Amino acid sequence: MLLLRFIVREFKVLSDKYVILNQIQSPADLKRLPVEQLPALCQEIRRYIIEVVSHNPGHLGSSLGVVEMTVALHYVFDFPEDKLVWDVGHQAYAHKILTGRRDAFVNNRKYKGISGFPKMSESEYDAFGAGHASISISAVLGMATASYLSGNENRQHVAVIGDGSMTGGEAFEGLNNAGIAKANMLVILNDNGMAIDRSVGALSRYLLRITTSPAYNRVKNRLWRTLTGKVRRVFQNISSVLKSSILKQSNLFESLGMRYFGPVDGHDVVHLVKVLRDVRRIQGPKLLHCLTVKGKGLPMAEEHQAQYHAPGLFDPVSGHILESKQEPDAKEKYQVVFGKTLCEMAASNDKIIGITPAMLSGCSLDIMQARYPERVFDTGITEQHAVTFSAGLAASGYLPFCAIYSTFLQRAYDQIIHDVALQRLPVVFCIDRAGLVGEDGATHHGLFDLAYLRCIPNMVVSSPLNESELRNLMVTAEASGQPFAIRYPRGKGVQPDWQSVPPQRLEIGKGRCVREGRDVAVLSIGPVGNHALAAAERLATEGISVAVYDVRFLKPLDESLLHEICSRFSRLLTLENGTRIGGLGSAVSEFMTTHGYTSRLEMLGVDDYFVEQGSVPELEAECGLDVEHVQAALRSLASETQQ
Amino acid sequence: MLLLRFIVREFKVLSDKYVILNQIQSPADLKRLPVEQLPALCQEIRRYIIEVVSHNPGHLGSSLGVVEMTVALHYVFDFPEDKLVWDVGHQAYAHKILTGRRDAFVNNRKYKGISGFPKMSESEYDAFGAGHASISISAVLGMATASYLSGNENRQHVAVIGDGSMTGGEAFEGLNNAGIAKANMLVILNDNGMAIDRSVGALSRYLLRITTSPAYNRVKNRLWRTLTGKVRRVFQNISSVLKSSILKQSNLFESLGMRYFGPVDGHDVVHLVKVLRDVRRIQGPKLLHCLTVKGKGLPMAEEHQAQYHAPGLFDPVSGHILESKQEPDAKEKYQVVFGKTLCEMAASNDKIIGITPAMLSGCSLDIMQARYPERVFDTGITEQHAVTFSAGLAASGYLPFCAIYSTFLQRAYDQIIHDVALQRLPVVFCIDRAGLVGEDGATHHGLFDLAYLRCIPNMVVSSPLNESELRNLMVTAEASGQPFAIRYPRGKGVQPDWQSVPPQRLEIGKGRCVREGRDVAVLSIGPVGNHALAAAERLATEGISVAVYDVRFLKPLDESLLHEICSRFSRLLTLENGTRIGGLGSAVSEFMTTHGYTSRLEMLGVDDYFVEQGSVPELEAECGLDVEHVQAALRSLASETQQ
Repeated sequence: MLLLRFIVREFKVLSDKYVILNQIQSPADLKRLPVEQLPALCQEIRRYIIEVVSHNPGHLGSSLGVVEMTVALHYVFDFPEDKLVWDVGHQAYAHKILTGRRDAFVNNRKYKGISGFPKMSESEYDAFGAGHASISISAVLGMATASYLSGNENRQHVAVIGDGSMTGGEAFEGLNNAGIAKANMLVILNDNGMAIDRSVGALSRYLLRITTSPAYNRVKNRLWRTLTGKVRRVFQNISSVLKSSILKQSNLFESLGMRYFGPVDGHDVVHLVKVLRDVRRIQGPKLLHCLTVKGKGLPMAEEHQAQYHAPGLFDPVSGHILESKQEPDAKEKYQVVFGKTLCEMAASNDKIIGITPAMLSGCSLDIMQARYPERVFDTGITEQHAVTFSAGLAASGYLPFCAIYSTFLQRAYDQIIHDVALQRLPVVFCIDRAGLVGEDGATHHGLFDLAYLRCIPNMVVSSPLNESELRNLMVTAEASGQPFAIRYPRGKGVQPDWQSVPPQRLEIGKGRCVREGRDVAVLSIGPVGNHALAAAERLATEGISVAVYDVRFLKPLDESLLHEICSRFSRLLTLENGTRIGGLGSAVSEFMTTHGYTSRLEMLGVDDYFVEQGSVPELEAECGLDVEHVQAALRSLASETQQ
Repeated sequence: MLLLRFIVREFKVLSDKYVILNQIQSPADLKRLPVEQLPALCQEIRRYIIEVVSHNPGHLGSSLGVVEMTVALHYVFDFPEDKLVWDVGHQAYAHKILTGRRDAFVNNRKYKGISGFPKMSESEYDAFGAGHASISISAVLGMATASYLSGNENRQHVAVIGDGSMTGGEAFEGLNNAGIAKANMLVILNDNGMAIDRSVGALSRYLLRITTSPAYNRVKNRLWRTLTGKVRRVFQNISSVLKSSILKQSNLFESLGMRYFGPVDGHDVVHLVKVLRDVRRIQGPKLLHCLTVKGKGLPMAEEHQAQYHAPGLFDPVSGHILESKQEPDAKEKYQVVFGKTLCEMAASNDKIIGITPAMLSGCSLDIMQARYPERVFDTGITEQHAVTFSAGLAASGYLPFCAIYSTFLQRAYDQIIHDVALQRLPVVFCIDRAGLVGEDGATHHGLFDLAYLRCIPNMVVSSPLNESELRNLMVTAEASGQPFAIRYPRGKGVQPDWQSVPPQRLEIGKGRCVREGRDVAVLSIGPVGNHALAAAERLATEGISVAVYDVRFLKPLDESLLHEICSRFSRLLTLENGTRIGGLGSAVSEFMTTHGYTSRLEMLGVDDYFVEQGSVPELEAECGLDVEHVQAALRSLASETQQ
């Protein structure tokens, strides 16, 4: 409480302006500051992040947690000559602000603005892009190896990775290789005990044990003493002391050949500068364990860390989240429809298990967790494990619903094929954030799933037009007894009354006509079909009659429906919120050429490029998937018909 | 030498018959044997494996290494009521022999025979299929969780995983989750110091340190004493002793919440029975570290472990590998053409780096390693790390050639998209074992790569018709400055003189006509195009004139060539050694429907199912990709044309 009042007071003092921050155009300016000024700079940066993110939503908590670490890193190291890689990258706001993007930061995550993640093409200070977790050690090891091979012994290579990301298998693969490498690299373990939700797994318990054990302060003090003065020699001399005192605690990393230092307080910037200066002089692979607090400096964010991971709009002073004004007929997010429906289904089917690799609240699986905690598993940032674990449960007669964002499911591609599909195990993949996701940008759009799942034998691949269809597909999957993918987008649906009708099983592989028409036919999959309906509505006023078909299932494809459509219509449009290569358009093309249909086919989907960030409507417009573009494409096709 | 003579002698004694083995129809029969007979049984099993595998090639070394472990497991546990999962699964021969497949084993890996890997549909004793590495802990944790949820406290769940597989990230993800689970599971770490090649990485060093440290025998003896008598109590009592003596050594696993036991001699079957009986009584997640020798019992195989991983034909008594009779114009394997060419290229371009996740000899990267050891990296069984590590090198100006089997590249799908393609980094993916691979079967065919790579922006996706084209594509990739995939099959090429012409750069995205014709056109990608040429040759004698186009690049597609072909021919055939969904046929379909071409298109590729094992010619025939089927398809198309 005292601390809380202290922080609030401090805020008020600094709220007027950014005296120091305004002097910093680049890390060179930062280096000119006396070290005593760094705490004040940190407070200004924190204040600036809060101010901007409060009205331009972004990843708040993680970025607030690493302000001091970021300042210390840029103060001590010589980036971009040295290399710095941020794991996941949503914590890099202070880094962006200090590296020439202070003013651009007001357009963080906006269309044509700067990316919310590090991005090589955006700044030479972004040594490697990120967005997905657990890659930083591997990437930095590549860079450090490159320096070693080219004889550059001075260049430093730093990976900053959270304890959440450390649970991902690739991080372990990287450590296992780094530990034997002739590489000059530093891994900073940013330990805040959180992924988006609370960190899980044995590693997280282990880290907690290190930091709370009685030896902690003793070890820490010993380390501080070590790190003043003639460091190298002292380090060698006390290596036996370290071995017997720290090693017992830190053996996990030492076992893997990484020199372990820490834990240190990640919010004491002056201390961090000292530690980093000394650690940088030690050759070889090493790990510095930093303790930080997610949301540091904003009391509400410190208290509700999962909620403030990406809180949306909030009051910059009180921290209170501002509810967007809800209309009375407010629609629900697809994820909530999924979460509530699964919880309902779990009530009557005790074989249903909910599984998610660290997307518990993001997928609304916390709804089922609240009611059936024993039957919900958050496996940490471990897509691969989550899928094989699901397969193991399915092999034992359970029915796992595995909830993963589309972009992260890419991580488990082999496990989908090898562990689930090949064995035809009934795992239901509930693929959230499919299609364009908006402000998270290129690393997070879920554009490839239709293409990469369609080629897998034994899979059902489906997407609902709306909320009740999502529920229908879920109960269909429940009864199917085979691998089943259901993809649905980020954001809200279209049916305020989705709960009024109980879900019903569908025939697998059966599409349907959702609007009759004469001139042109649209075949769509997923909620983007609502744009087709809207476009058809508008075109009716122009005298153009558009039929809209919701194929529902990309696989198996409803061939009898396709025969009917191809026989009736000479002009067709396919519409999907995903890459145009390999998805619905591709499947319909294959069908037509195979069966000799010569109708004219126009395929709407995302072009073959990586789409940047922006709001979903902005990006749909860019990609030609909004109502206007669909309407225009249909009008143009219809006019061809009339020729 | 003494040991060697002893083993050879023992062999001769047993070579006549299988006195004990012949009594074993199932594990129930095994359990009836007195424990003293188990060593003799192990020798018979070993002898039987050697005899069968000597003339019906398979995975010899790994299976010889776990004979005692397998016997002990089936002697102590009650499979299939208990659950046993073999990681990778190529070591499961003794398991198959003991579980009703002794006679079927003579058809191991043969067409319509039994699979060389565990397979759920083959036996109730195969609790989970495998073929890829590092999945067993996750799968078993799923099963153990299922038992826990259904209130079954007695069922045991065992994963057997090699030290090579333990380097894969998913194994760590599994351990991290198992360590906190309320699951009754045993992980057996089968530590033989090898993947296919020698194990690499810090973990491997760590395991070696445990087993060679002075504490080893002391700890071992202490464990033995513990494991006789009233185990539970004793274990509790000596837990502090264990903590202080073993823990210092084994902390890596204890850190992750696994009770650690070992190391024990994996070839002392009587001891193993004792240890397993005691360990099975301990609830919760635990790990038993077993030391084994790959190739155990066949001196040549023990000495040359990488070579005898899968040695082909060999003399069952001497162990000598039988060279298949080479014709004077012997063709080289594609992998060797790759390996030699890369080594040549590396001589003139010091930026070229060779990287492989544990497929060093399998990809013939050992050729470059012998000459440029500093520039070749075997990263262990870590596809994800290998790709991001490559991206890190590429970001620092190096040019990584990353050699991976097609089926294993699935493991790095996200890294290809997120770390390489999105950042447009020049990583060259040299995808070996693409297409049907033969005897390894469903888990190993490389059938999906064309489909899953084609939808990724910024990628070049290519495949050579023959050896010189492979070389041409490699130098083209070298100069391309972007992500570049080259896929080629297992086995030999078609050009004895491939080395006579120096490789030359191709225009990216440019296909070519390799045979002129009038009636029908084939568009093929990769070496399967040679079947098209052969079929065209044969059809010429029937008066049918077939044009053959080698598209070379699936992406970017040669659209001007396609316009030409579609304008000239009304009947087209696409041909690819991969799934028919999403690959070349699909791309040509998209092109045709988009541009309004109404030619008749027949697509030859692998149907939408998982293809089992067999020889490549047998499987090509099954999938309709051999010369006969191509010929028939073309003949049929040609006759349509003439109507």
